[in-house]
Amino acid sequence: MHASRLGTVVIDCCTDDLDAAAAFWAAALGRAAGKLDDPQDGNYRHLEAAGDEVAVLVQAVAHASRVHIDIETDDIEAEVQRLERLGAVRVAQVKRWWVMEAPTGQRFCVVRPQRSGFADSARRWEDAP
Amino acid sequence: MHASRLGTVVIDCCTDDLDAAAAFWAAALGRAAGKLDDPQDGNYRHLEAAGDEVAVLVQAVAHASRVHIDIETDDIEAEVQRLERLGAVRVAQVKRWWVMEAPTGQRFCVVRPQRSGFADSARRWEDAP
Repeated sequence: MHASRLGTVVIDCCTDDLDAAAAFWAAALGRAAGKLDDPQDGNYRHLEAAGDEVAVLVQAVAHASRVHIDIETDDIEAEVQRLERLGAVRVAQVKRWWVMEAPTGQRFCVVRPQRSGFADSARRWEDAP
Repeated sequence: MHASRLGTVVIDCCTDDLDAAAAFWAAALGRAAGKLDDPQDGNYRHLEAAGDEVAVLVQAVAHASRVHIDIETDDIEAEVQRLERLGAVRVAQVKRWWVMEAPTGQRFCVVRPQRSGFADSARRWEDAP
């Protein structure tokens, strides 16, 4: 048994000025921007969320600007396998998370739980035998 | 004075089979898919949200598959003007809502409130004189 839910909206920005990009999205969405705790995560800014609202990250990327979603889960491998059974495919493993591609073409990530309220609202899944 | 917040994650799918696309995303995110009330909205399926969770729509589109966000507001014109002052530009008006483009390149929409809890958690903005 594992659990998952929509965790984060990631706003991928093809930019050399991550702080300016984060400042726009922070003001647009009415959320304060901040750095992540891990210095290795310098290409991200998080936008502060009230309560259990969906998390929002602004990321500096080299590819074209876009938006992707992260599915958060307490068992990445079991969740990736569940999504594979639904038709998604693995693209690449990055640190602890997986980049996947949906049958409808969008890329998304499968990550560890990122925001509060996971135990209460994540959907529980029976793992395949 | 008006208010706005992140309202909806819209999963744009370049597909002739919207129900199959919605079925994948419904299963991936653990939310039931359903049609919208307005028969004119036949190219959308909504994914049921628990409580005040961010809304998710799956939309059949003719352009490449992607994900975009909707900002919901109780005053579309005032919110569009606020976002213009931040550097976003108007792209097109569709029915009652506006498609805009962020300075970082992503398109997003400014729409009427779509999900519950707006009065409690939307950010309030002073309108320009």
